[in-house]
Amino acid sequence: PAPEGLAEAPAAAFDGFAAPSARVEPDAAPDQAALDRPLGAARAQIHENYILAQTGDGMILVDQHAAHERLVYERLKRQMAETGVTAQALLIPEIVELSEGDAARLLDHAGDLARLGLSVEGFGPGAVAVRETPAALGRVDAAALVRDILDELAEQGSSGALEERLHAVLSRMACHGSVRSGRRMSAEEMNALLREMEETPRSGQCNHGRPTWVRLGLDDIEKLFGRR
Amino acid sequence: PAPEGLAEAPAAAFDGFAAPSARVEPDAAPDQAALDRPLGAARAQIHENYILAQTGDGMILVDQHAAHERLVYERLKRQMAETGVTAQALLIPEIVELSEGDAARLLDHAGDLARLGLSVEGFGPGAVAVRETPAALGRVDAAALVRDILDELAEQGSSGALEERLHAVLSRMACHGSVRSGRRMSAEEMNALLREMEETPRSGQCNHGRPTWVRLGLDDIEKLFGRR
Repeated sequence: PAPEGLAEAPAAAFDGFAAPSARVEPDAAPDQAALDRPLGAARAQIHENYILAQTGDGMILVDQHAAHERLVYERLKRQMAETGVTAQALLIPEIVELSEGDAARLLDHAGDLARLGLSVEGFGPGAVAVRETPAALGRVDAAALVRDILDELAEQGSSGALEERLHAVLSRMACHGSVRSGRRMSAEEMNALLREMEETPRSGQCNHGRPTWVRLGLDDIEKLFGRR
Repeated sequence: PAPEGLAEAPAAAFDGFAAPSARVEPDAAPDQAALDRPLGAARAQIHENYILAQTGDGMILVDQHAAHERLVYERLKRQMAETGVTAQALLIPEIVELSEGDAARLLDHAGDLARLGLSVEGFGPGAVAVRETPAALGRVDAAALVRDILDELAEQGSSGALEERLHAVLSRMACHGSVRSGRRMSAEEMNALLREMEETPRSGQCNHGRPTWVRLGLDDIEKLFGRR
């Protein structure tokens, strides 16, 4: 008789899983060293958006995009303060078509942008050539990055200290270098993200001031189940 | 240079995980059919106590012991109502040493206990021989089961309807057939538990009236992250 779920194959079924299986099992024990870290060991990714990690005394949920965006931003700020943002040359410069006004406005800031790892040159009246992008962003869509920076420049106007304005541009840039919501991450990637969060100041808040992770303690969980 | 975490190997590191790996990765896509079920697809076990499942619009956390205890209890009640609880003979009867009073009290109920799948016989003045146990419990510690039932009988006295008293004993029995807290479960076991919960009436509450699972919707999660 074919057992259908637990109803027909009773508790004994829970004792009989000793046989080796070729299937990938997500029931591996979490890494003990990671469990002892503040943000714990990654156990699952939920809705391709949240990293669920087990800590010594509960679990945490990380907003993967918000957290990574903050890490990239902090990395860019650190580089800017220390050595200038490391740029990475594109193999082939990317030509971005813009309005003449936008192209001119962007080139007005070419000097500052170069300090931020973004090298742009004029390319005819309504286009720019992007030659270098910030290395910390990895591969990016240069056209989307340039348009986003133009938005940021337009929002800022010329008010505020230069430093502040540069930080605002870095914050916009960071979004382009971040793990997107909706991207599946491996256990190694998730754990690497958790470990870097632990070592990065201000990583508990995203660039827009929202929390990048929340904690659910074992005592909170027990309360949910009416145990306390 | 050896990359240390994300700080040295920036966003590019998140694009480079295409190489095949021999390691077990808990990042397999959840089963789509299970995601559409009310209790979703098991994704992780937390603190060897809680099953975390992803549903179409959020996640749920299941108290594995409480949930399974209820399932076993409902299975035993169903059997009792339909055919009497199915018993399973022990290969070798188990002799349980008791006080003379306890042995006598247990044997007073031998008829009812037999209907519940538990066959006991006298074995000298201060002991009983357990010959059969309820099949739904799987392998159990007969001595612990017998002592727990004696506790239950002592608590009940002779008050209450027979049916009620039998149910109370079944509820005690169910605990013995349940997945313990602290036991690691495979993905298949967790999903089988979720599927049986969906098909079992009253599986949302444990035998003591506490919830067996709680839900955290995507909208709740977004609120936690200040997104709403």
